[in-house]
Amino acid sequence: MSILAVGSIAFDTIKTPYGEVSDIVGGSLTYFALAASFFTDVNLVAVVGEDFGDEQMALFRGRCIDLQGLARVSGKTFRWGGAYSHNLNSRETLFTELNVFEGFRPDLPESYRKADLVFLGNMHPLLQQSVLDQVKHKRLVGMDSMNLWIETTPNELRDVLGRVDVMKIDDSEARDLAGVYNLRKAAGAIQALGPQTLIATRGSHGAMLFTRSDIFSAPAYPLEDERDPTGAGDCFAGGLFGYLAQCKTLDDAEFRRAMIFGSVMGSFCVEDYGTARIERLTLDEIHARYRALKQMTDFDDLTA
Amino acid sequence: MSILAVGSIAFDTIKTPYGEVSDIVGGSLTYFALAASFFTDVNLVAVVGEDFGDEQMALFRGRCIDLQGLARVSGKTFRWGGAYSHNLNSRETLFTELNVFEGFRPDLPESYRKADLVFLGNMHPLLQQSVLDQVKHKRLVGMDSMNLWIETTPNELRDVLGRVDVMKIDDSEARDLAGVYNLRKAAGAIQALGPQTLIATRGSHGAMLFTRSDIFSAPAYPLEDERDPTGAGDCFAGGLFGYLAQCKTLDDAEFRRAMIFGSVMGSFCVEDYGTARIERLTLDEIHARYRALKQMTDFDDLTA
Repeated sequence: MSILAVGSIAFDTIKTPYGEVSDIVGGSLTYFALAASFFTDVNLVAVVGEDFGDEQMALFRGRCIDLQGLARVSGKTFRWGGAYSHNLNSRETLFTELNVFEGFRPDLPESYRKADLVFLGNMHPLLQQSVLDQVKHKRLVGMDSMNLWIETTPNELRDVLGRVDVMKIDDSEARDLAGVYNLRKAAGAIQALGPQTLIATRGSHGAMLFTRSDIFSAPAYPLEDERDPTGAGDCFAGGLFGYLAQCKTLDDAEFRRAMIFGSVMGSFCVEDYGTARIERLTLDEIHARYRALKQMTDFDDLTA
Repeated sequence: MSILAVGSIAFDTIKTPYGEVSDIVGGSLTYFALAASFFTDVNLVAVVGEDFGDEQMALFRGRCIDLQGLARVSGKTFRWGGAYSHNLNSRETLFTELNVFEGFRPDLPESYRKADLVFLGNMHPLLQQSVLDQVKHKRLVGMDSMNLWIETTPNELRDVLGRVDVMKIDDSEARDLAGVYNLRKAAGAIQALGPQTLIATRGSHGAMLFTRSDIFSAPAYPLEDERDPTGAGDCFAGGLFGYLAQCKTLDDAEFRRAMIFGSVMGSFCVEDYGTARIERLTLDEIHARYRALKQMTDFDDLTA
């Protein structure tokens, strides 16, 4: 079982009230792949520039991440800078330099064209479409998106939505996409556009799962020390889809477990800058936090 | 088992994007008492004016609510008006006329002075203190408060905190009271002031319970139609403390169930204007929604 995952790899500069890091390896696909690789093999499709060397590549090595689909082209790697407010609950983008990502045209290695699970990271809907066009066989397709595409490429986004099974998106963006504030109604409106399943993430408030037959409320792990929220949503997606990729059946019970693994991976991500916490994470820690979330949400039935 | 509950009864004028109601019976104690009376007997201590007649009293009749402690004095009843924003997620106070509530000095009937559970509604900490001074025996004391008292009467509020077991408060107010943003740390700081237990409500995101030995994340019921959030936090408190009042033991498992009943009662409150939904609510509906929340949050252990 494996995931084909497409998205951005970047150099990030991050300022928080607690400190600052410059030019660390980030980008949504980096977080997604690291998180998913705890559960399944990840075939990675992305582009980097000449400034992305062995030192950076080392981040992906020794993990279940295949780099055949990582194109290294002339030019500079995508760069992004962001600054967080006092309590880490709002973020200002300081700069975005697309660089080589601007010319990114995903070209899948032949061995990637049969995929169990395809994850379309947050990028232009036409790029997401082109990836789907190249995959001959897939069991499940998941996607992410953001306000930029909801606002600037609504028709292209709708075309992608018609071809995917699971959309994972921030709750505020789900509301914007659906054009309705109530999250249950928004989920219904998005499901009507194609995806059987909507997953709306709510930051430190957890996440909601809406399938055709199920609604599930996943808790967030209440951290005592939050350092840097960058990549938390991507780690959530990595844990979620990574777990799903290795499931024999994809029923509501498995989706619920996947939501918890998503929440677990997102929570770890926030504990340190960039990918640092995920890099030193162990499977034992992941399982311990899964159990902690079970313990923290369990209550008796009325009949108990 | 019974609750002694002190707080405000008011005439509310409420404007939402969906409509408007004028001079309906509201006030935090009204919501609390109606919600709690599904679970236990409520001894109510409050003041109303001459304009609060039989028509208004009827709201409390035929329920497990004792009105001996309801003083009717010359003057007008407390009046409050509020207007909600587009998506009901922010509120502007239009007017506050304290009227007879300004001179409110709780005077407990003799039969109220032995109470299983005392609930101090959101009001001036000196009034909360005077209630505690009058109670000879109590098993558990709960309280609510708000930013007004955190800011204007911090010392008096600390004195009350030193005498209560459970504080129920909005998460943002918990952060303000503790002077720290992280909710786990805020809970620890508030516990250090006296209450063994902090319950932080998070509106449509649920609520968190922090005891000395337990952390519990309670979900909110995802409503499809929200009409009026007025009183939802008070109904949460009513369900929570009403359930606790009739518990034989007060262990973490019972507190968890109580949190769910709180969430259930808060969710119903939002379904119609003012107290309308709570007035026509049945115990069967309460139990059905408890089960729905159980169903909506359950997931397998790793070993399952």
